[in-house]
Amino acid sequence: MSAHNKPIALIIGAGDHLGLAIAKRFAREGFHIVATRRRGDLGALVTAVEALGASATPYHSDARDEQQVINLINQIETELGPIQVAVFNVGGNVRYDICDTSSRIYRKVWEMCAFAGFLFGRELARKMLPRQQGTLLFTGASASLRGNSGFAAFAGGKHALRALAQSMARELGPQGIHVAHVIIDGLIENQATAEYLPDLYASKGDDGIIQPDNIADIYWQLHQQPRNAWTFEQDVRPFAEPW
Amino acid sequence: MSAHNKPIALIIGAGDHLGLAIAKRFAREGFHIVATRRRGDLGALVTAVEALGASATPYHSDARDEQQVINLINQIETELGPIQVAVFNVGGNVRYDICDTSSRIYRKVWEMCAFAGFLFGRELARKMLPRQQGTLLFTGASASLRGNSGFAAFAGGKHALRALAQSMARELGPQGIHVAHVIIDGLIENQATAEYLPDLYASKGDDGIIQPDNIADIYWQLHQQPRNAWTFEQDVRPFAEPW
Amino acid sequence: MSAHNKPIALIIGAGDHLGLAIAKRFAREGFHIVATRRRGDLGALVTAVEALGASATPYHSDARDEQQVINLINQIETELGPIQVAVFNVGGNVRYDICDTSSRIYRKVWEMCAFAGFLFGRELARKMLPRQQGTLLFTGASASLRGNSGFAAFAGGKHALRALAQSMARELGPQGIHVAHVIIDGLIENQATAEYLPDLYASKGDDGIIQPDNIADIYWQLHQQPRNAWTFEQDVRPFAEPW
Amino acid sequence: MSAHNKPIALIIGAGDHLGLAIAKRFAREGFHIVATRRRGDLGALVTAVEALGASATPYHSDARDEQQVINLINQIETELGPIQVAVFNVGGNVRYDICDTSSRIYRKVWEMCAFAGFLFGRELARKMLPRQQGTLLFTGASASLRGNSGFAAFAGGKHALRALAQSMARELGPQGIHVAHVIIDGLIENQATAEYLPDLYASKGDDGIIQPDNIADIYWQLHQQPRNAWTFEQDVRPFAEPW
Repeated sequence: MSAHNKPIALIIGAGDHLGLAIAKRFAREGFHIVATRRRGDLGALVTAVEALGASATPYHSDARDEQQVINLINQIETELGPIQVAVFNVGGNVRYDICDTSSRIYRKVWEMCAFAGFLFGRELARKMLPRQQGTLLFTGASASLRGNSGFAAFAGGKHALRALAQSMARELGPQGIHVAHVIIDGLIENQATAEYLPDLYASKGDDGIIQPDNIADIYWQLHQQPRNAWTFEQDVRPFAEPW
Repeated sequence: MSAHNKPIALIIGAGDHLGLAIAKRFAREGFHIVATRRRGDLGALVTAVEALGASATPYHSDARDEQQVINLINQIETELGPIQVAVFNVGGNVRYDICDTSSRIYRKVWEMCAFAGFLFGRELARKMLPRQQGTLLFTGASASLRGNSGFAAFAGGKHALRALAQSMARELGPQGIHVAHVIIDGLIENQATAEYLPDLYASKGDDGIIQPDNIADIYWQLHQQPRNAWTFEQDVRPFAEPW
Repeated sequence: MSAHNKPIALIIGAGDHLGLAIAKRFAREGFHIVATRRRGDLGALVTAVEALGASATPYHSDARDEQQVINLINQIETELGPIQVAVFNVGGNVRYDICDTSSRIYRKVWEMCAFAGFLFGRELARKMLPRQQGTLLFTGASASLRGNSGFAAFAGGKHALRALAQSMARELGPQGIHVAHVIIDGLIENQATAEYLPDLYASKGDDGIIQPDNIADIYWQLHQQPRNAWTFEQDVRPFAEPW
Repeated sequence: MSAHNKPIALIIGAGDHLGLAIAKRFAREGFHIVATRRRGDLGALVTAVEALGASATPYHSDARDEQQVINLINQIETELGPIQVAVFNVGGNVRYDICDTSSRIYRKVWEMCAFAGFLFGRELARKMLPRQQGTLLFTGASASLRGNSGFAAFAGGKHALRALAQSMARELGPQGIHVAHVIIDGLIENQATAEYLPDLYASKGDDGIIQPDNIADIYWQLHQQPRNAWTFEQDVRPFAEPW
């Protein structure tokens, strides 16, 4: 229990859509929410959580910066209490032909997808292992499983993140830490897509875009699983999505 | 809605453990349960469902016999109402060195795992497609993904079942039918194992054996997913299971 | 060495294209060829092998019939000598919507792809195990790895065949038997396609159709691998094939 | 043809065992060899190649340094001629529990396995695309396919490298560039293992360690494949290796 006498859910990379939905889902279940992103507003998230009668602490923190991650997690554990569940939701989907992929882009995508995931996973493992419990949830994509033309950078980052999650699941599972990886295969409902890619958005039709609340339900269900029946991996896509 | 004014959940291969747990889970959610097995008692299942204030219809039916499957599903739909969710839970785990695998065994395991799954899937697709809705849930195993020494027959059957489920998911998903495949990787709590393999049973330790109720929760969650966010595949294993 | 003082290569399912190419490849390397098919002419194959200065024995035999397979392999080993390498090349590619897939088709495709592969593998394992050597080569397809809309039957058969090959490789490898599985992802050069599907054929363009001789080279290379460096699985496709 | 009137084979990460074997294999086929490593002697490689009547140019170059890679490939193409085949053979196998994995190690392993592979692949694609031909061969490991306890860093790097190779194969294949990935699953014959891990070495028994020459044969075979029949991926392991 935390200083708030509530369990703590941490969301790293808490964006306006999936991040917000996960925050609300765990808030409804009685968690105190800690939400971070590098830049961008977290006020709406705090407001939405408080509207549910719950509480949230926002942080601006760079998930790719080792010292910031260490400090962030130490501070949360010291000031707020033990983290029970943590979600890694930092993305970085880009598409470039191989010859147009700059080394800066290739490295940055890996830092966002995989290196940040590693810092997150290791620091939380260090806190959770002595307690022999905790849940670590990683957000994957179709590129986690398959490299496609134009996706050397993104698929590289997402493959590496999956390798991290699988390695951690095999190492930490027997020590009581539940590590899971959710492969999201499709467009997530998103203001920006509706505005800037209206044709793509419209082409998806009814129920052709994943509602963040439904993914948040999956994260909640994974956290709820008792340790005799843990899922490591689960995919999710709209009914009409080709795959 | 059925003759009972309840939605119908069908469980093919309703054994004493996982089958019973799934029956109880959907009964608690207001479903009328139809449970089949080839032989063996279904009285305890009916009693358990009724103890929850729900109702169940038991059938003895051979899931490998085309005419019996056709008749069964026609009869349910005619007499009880439309099937909303159906679970294929017929197993057949055996282990033989390749040179000791008789053609009778190899064929029988395929008939139980895959041919019966095909009859089940096709007949339910025929009913569900005109309604553009319904859920088909298939029970897989670690052998669904990986062939191992001694498992040519079982892995063959389970691989074929997964190919069926994946083919059906891709064909029927865009038509509103949710097909999912759950990979169970570990021992399920089971009277027989406790009695006849007490050493294996004991070796699994606390929470080392999957409780059927927890798998049943997953089946229920899969059925509940709205069509913008469907899972095709999900694994489940005890926390300390090596994989 | 055989009665011919030559090593023996057996090809089950020796069709006019890939079967013929494999026969010629091993004939050129000094093997006596035994080629079987259920129906259809083997005269051209024998002629082609003899034109290379080699020899071939044709059989008509149903690869799905246990007694015929047992008798065939016994007869070859008794009359001609020990089989050093055997290729399973029986196919059965069909496409049907799930609701249009008859149980006869579903079963027949499995019998051709998987049950025949099992009979082949088991009978050859029985001969090769006492000798602690031999090569078993299985022909797979893209459907070995992925179930697609319309391919429940074919993907089921091919998935089961891959499970068989992988199970046998893990069991028999440490006993000196090399089991390998080649995934052919694309159209193989084929008179029938050119004649009956001229548009598909033409659409493939230059080098868009796999030449059987090039697959035959792969089979030969696999057989040549020394046991410190065995390949289990290898894919092959035309350069411009989408995948 | 190069300044030597010979085709050029480039080996990045040309170590004393696999690198040397690949150099000798291509030298025997008439190639001029260009071999690089960051540090360590290349004199023995040059001597071995020259003993075959062929020629080799050694470079010390850091495969993780973008400018060095660009300069290296420009210099080879300008001074020696067009590169026909290039092998990426930089490794970085380490094992650490997740909590003991420093960010320096995690990053360095990725830089060796994946970032260096990206620089290699992109720079060679830039040269080969205008020619519409060329072969790029990547060396993988069992960790390319599977994360394991203790292998978050190594599996992350190798997964990312496989994603790169697969993305490039799908993009560049239709443009005439053959990209392939070889998964080496087992110990490669290696002076250091024999000396420093004699128990592990001895435990492998006869033919339990992969001879580099046999892997080199696979690389040569892949380069020889005509474009109607290209392999993307192939595994290789000793006959008795558990997998």
